[in-house]
Amino acid sequence: MAVYTHLGAEELASLIQEYDVGTLTSAKGIAEGVSNSNWLIETTGKDGTGARFILTMYERRIDLNELPFFLGLLDHLAAKGCPVPRTIHDRANRAYRMLGEKAVALIEFLPGVSVDHPEPAQARSVGAALAGIHLASADFPASRANGLSLPSWRELADDCGEAGLASINPELPDLVQGELAFLQANWPAALPHAVIHADLFPDNVLMLGDAVGGLIDFYFACNDIAAYDLAVTHAAWCFEADGSFRPAVAAALIEGYCAVRPLSRDERHALPVLARGAAMRFMMTRAYDWLHTPADALVTRKDPMDFARRLRFYAEKGDAAFPLPHD
Amino acid sequence: MAVYTHLGAEELASLIQEYDVGTLTSAKGIAEGVSNSNWLIETTGKDGTGARFILTMYERRIDLNELPFFLGLLDHLAAKGCPVPRTIHDRANRAYRMLGEKAVALIEFLPGVSVDHPEPAQARSVGAALAGIHLASADFPASRANGLSLPSWRELADDCGEAGLASINPELPDLVQGELAFLQANWPAALPHAVIHADLFPDNVLMLGDAVGGLIDFYFACNDIAAYDLAVTHAAWCFEADGSFRPAVAAALIEGYCAVRPLSRDERHALPVLARGAAMRFMMTRAYDWLHTPADALVTRKDPMDFARRLRFYAEKGDAAFPLPHD
Repeated sequence: MAVYTHLGAEELASLIQEYDVGTLTSAKGIAEGVSNSNWLIETTGKDGTGARFILTMYERRIDLNELPFFLGLLDHLAAKGCPVPRTIHDRANRAYRMLGEKAVALIEFLPGVSVDHPEPAQARSVGAALAGIHLASADFPASRANGLSLPSWRELADDCGEAGLASINPELPDLVQGELAFLQANWPAALPHAVIHADLFPDNVLMLGDAVGGLIDFYFACNDIAAYDLAVTHAAWCFEADGSFRPAVAAALIEGYCAVRPLSRDERHALPVLARGAAMRFMMTRAYDWLHTPADALVTRKDPMDFARRLRFYAEKGDAAFPLPHD
Repeated sequence: MAVYTHLGAEELASLIQEYDVGTLTSAKGIAEGVSNSNWLIETTGKDGTGARFILTMYERRIDLNELPFFLGLLDHLAAKGCPVPRTIHDRANRAYRMLGEKAVALIEFLPGVSVDHPEPAQARSVGAALAGIHLASADFPASRANGLSLPSWRELADDCGEAGLASINPELPDLVQGELAFLQANWPAALPHAVIHADLFPDNVLMLGDAVGGLIDFYFACNDIAAYDLAVTHAAWCFEADGSFRPAVAAALIEGYCAVRPLSRDERHALPVLARGAAMRFMMTRAYDWLHTPADALVTRKDPMDFARRLRFYAEKGDAAFPLPHD
């Protein structure tokens, strides 16, 4: 949570002039984004009635060659009515520009607030919105491999090392090795793919009451199993802070999803293993970050054990973690 | 630059309901404030057309007993047409509320951007706005002593110690002692007082082109010599990043000030010594923070030597640093 780069008013005003959005009237650095700097920008708007945007500066982690995928995806989904922010193109129709050595993009501002403790009605809306992007992305022409799929989880585990994992929790090395073997043997091969968000935590959803105002932060989006995205969202939304399961939220999430994109029998059966994979994915990236981030760094480290517990929960409960809507 | 406290959407929405401003539609933590957390808040507005506010949470440094002074001052000045943000009162007419153990205030959002490199026309507007608050505060009923006036500079110097000051720069101990003695002997006794901003750096002014959109961050405001506030602003606005003086900006600043509140002959004559005091004030607080802030802390330390150089400049140049408008 930081703004990594200082941009003066003069530099911002001149950047905004490259877009047909009126002139700059306000700019506030916002405390969002781990690998980006973001500003909430206001302009006079094309018609003088005012307009707001998010200006994102890509600081690190991002491969410039991938920006057209991410930004093009937003445009594709927005054009199909999905609640995602459009990319504002500059006067030369570029989706991003370079400011010095860094890429910047001007993104539509969407209203809404991220909830800490989602209610079932909110999870239902999120499920429906997620299914909507899976359907709408079917004819998106670009593609991007998932850099955080099963093979990468083993690489992350190797990077952490047994001693590293054990330093986080003595039970972690066995859990990781056991689950990696299980997932390797049981990962579904032939489920329908889509462009997936792959990181749809509550802080990446702007809610307006029970409605979804916007899905944001598509910088992990990639082509992968559609139902895996639902499993990621399940792992991210359906647990209390103390780790206990919230079955009503889970049921509503799946119900909302199925109302827009019904799951096949194979997809339903695969949900428990997909959710174990989802929990593994976040457990492993958090473990890696935990071991590679100084305790006093700017970025708050997230506890890998939150997802170790969810992983165990999914392994123990199987289908019971996925209360399905009535057929 | 940080948001120190997490506020969930639920907590924010419920807080906003205590005010007659419509319902919450957006909240972004903004990267401003060293001792406060701030959020840019959007609501539906009283009439449904939308409204924006700054929500400030007072994290530390602030004495709750002083909040009525700071917030009441904003209301007083805004009512007189000064470009400062009003305090939004809650339904029970409270200027601030407690959220847990911390005070929060909802403040009017003002447009504008802080400039890095002010032009003379902008300095002229700022001078006029500063004079405006000095005039408008004349009948403000509350008062607050300046906690960072001459006696405190000596205390800060004692806290830093000769060795501490010398560790910043070998010439600093002599400069500090020599200037403290000079200021003690020459500080003007009988100049007009006002409520002064006392910290009007460019980042505390929101500019709309050459016009002032807002003066913000009044948390150093206090009763003191009006012309000292102009001297502070002079020290903050009239130098390049490399330390060189910008006479055209200085002339415009003073011209703008005098157009609204003409300086008396005594005030004009006192400007050089007041500016030496202003430079001393920022040199000493920065030296103190430099010695008391770990090099790897979240807060960026500011170099005290910037103001040591300005102090020497004022001592050497005298009246020449204050190119006055034609009478």
